[in-house]
Amino acid sequence: MNTVTFLNPVQEQVRLVEERMRAQADDRHPDLRAALEHLLVAGGKRVRPTLVLLTGNMLGGDPERLITLGAAVEMLHTATLVHDDLIDGSLLRRGTPTINARWSPAATVLTGDFIFARAAKLAAETDHLPLMKLFAETLAVIVNGELTQLFSSRGLINRENYYQRIYAKTASLFEMCTRAAAMVSPADGDTIEAMRQFGYQTGMAFQIVDDILDFTGEQAAVGKPVGSDLLQGLVTLPAIYYTETHPDDPDVRLLEEGGWGHRERMERLVESIRTSDAIQQAMAEAEQAVERALALLGPFQAGVEREALAGLARYIVDRQV
Amino acid sequence: MNTVTFLNPVQEQVRLVEERMRAQADDRHPDLRAALEHLLVAGGKRVRPTLVLLTGNMLGGDPERLITLGAAVEMLHTATLVHDDLIDGSLLRRGTPTINARWSPAATVLTGDFIFARAAKLAAETDHLPLMKLFAETLAVIVNGELTQLFSSRGLINRENYYQRIYAKTASLFEMCTRAAAMVSPADGDTIEAMRQFGYQTGMAFQIVDDILDFTGEQAAVGKPVGSDLLQGLVTLPAIYYTETHPDDPDVRLLEEGGWGHRERMERLVESIRTSDAIQQAMAEAEQAVERALALLGPFQAGVEREALAGLARYIVDRQV
Repeated sequence: MNTVTFLNPVQEQVRLVEERMRAQADDRHPDLRAALEHLLVAGGKRVRPTLVLLTGNMLGGDPERLITLGAAVEMLHTATLVHDDLIDGSLLRRGTPTINARWSPAATVLTGDFIFARAAKLAAETDHLPLMKLFAETLAVIVNGELTQLFSSRGLINRENYYQRIYAKTASLFEMCTRAAAMVSPADGDTIEAMRQFGYQTGMAFQIVDDILDFTGEQAAVGKPVGSDLLQGLVTLPAIYYTETHPDDPDVRLLEEGGWGHRERMERLVESIRTSDAIQQAMAEAEQAVERALALLGPFQAGVEREALAGLARYIVDRQV
Repeated sequence: MNTVTFLNPVQEQVRLVEERMRAQADDRHPDLRAALEHLLVAGGKRVRPTLVLLTGNMLGGDPERLITLGAAVEMLHTATLVHDDLIDGSLLRRGTPTINARWSPAATVLTGDFIFARAAKLAAETDHLPLMKLFAETLAVIVNGELTQLFSSRGLINRENYYQRIYAKTASLFEMCTRAAAMVSPADGDTIEAMRQFGYQTGMAFQIVDDILDFTGEQAAVGKPVGSDLLQGLVTLPAIYYTETHPDDPDVRLLEEGGWGHRERMERLVESIRTSDAIQQAMAEAEQAVERALALLGPFQAGVEREALAGLARYIVDRQV
């Protein structure tokens, strides 16, 4: 299943989402327009608007409203990335210079704020108050998650903490995409709840796979050193499985004792994890989440939209970066 | 007219606004709760929620909804201040350490984002879609104004540019306060427009007076060196009047030629402006804006609410820091 297969039914709508995003800086400062254009060109797979569009189309939602919602969620996502890259000091994202690599911190903070404002405006244009509240609540969850991570001690090995973190970081917005798309479409409460869960499961799977790719990906493709999360004291699912199955590995003991800062030992631990079963165990967990997501689609009428949504869910575990 | 006089009718409601603001970090990370508490204690005069409450009360609006709206606008204002202080590197605001003086830039950016999210949630809780759109649009105006100022060449002497700048910085939010309060109250289109203009006029006056106080205030009270705007290349209304009436002053000529960076000469120019008619001319302009605001109140029924609103407008030009 390749990307094109699930994108086919909404390719034109995704283009309209991008057009709507681009229009958000019209009549604003030229540098702001340039920044937005730069972010749009840098692109990404538009997984979130695609989730919105496929869900809404399957449920018979109004295309115009879904495009507005798709632009709103992608703007929200983009704004958080702009601030994240500033906070992490990242100079590249998807091989393209970040805003903070080109501009001052001040301009980067304000550009993120402007994109937040535009995301809120687009969300309001869907003319749906419960959606506005969900939108604001989701932003609070994402930011609170980032703050919690910032203040947390590094090197913490804790499954519960991991799931909370990836929910805040990724699954909360995926969940919002499918839930909100159902909310603005003709759908009853059970359908909205099923689609919320679909977004939740695919979002959790998406982040688990991202965390696996941090170990298994090629440095050139991922754009960061292999195992960069662990080297920065961020313990993700592959590392959690490894520590559970190799409690006597001296590097695991060191990590447990707060030694995440020992670069050489942690590099060795990354290598141990890479070549262990922990990768397959973590991947199995992502696959189970995708299976749960696919099961949620069962009751919906078969058709190109449902197949595309299933294709997107499967793509999440099949992708190699 | 002192502060207490116009605050009296809404003192209890302002307290409820603060309570609502404080509740926004409940169940969140303890450091985030501490930050919000710190910002609340640092306080301020709560001019914006007071505008919301006095306007809404005068028009017979629902008190609960007005308190929610008041909390939303003050949270929005607070979020922009958190990011502003970070951008300017300000270590004190109203004599209290800023968030960025106590925390890392990363935590400061995220705290501001969290407060934005909570402002949006509160705004959504007013259950009024046009208000949500106005809210998002106003945030875009404020941020776009800051970006424009950031990218503008310094030392620019231009009246039109000055009015645009203070509209984006201050009057846009004042205007939103009174307009939004009217929108959620029983009020026809003309009333909403009159209250919008009332907010606009008081907001413009407020910022002009702030800019005057930058010249005339005592350093200890303002918390910055006298004439700090001009010394940073920001030409405000007193300086504009002075350059218009003293075109042959060599320091004015230097400023016109791009010499705002000559510290000693600019300090001398600040002193010339302080002791010139330019201060009175700028103040007369602020007073005219307040007179226009007061005239807009004419058609409304006389009573304690209208008098308090008039008192607030007069206070704006009467205050000494």
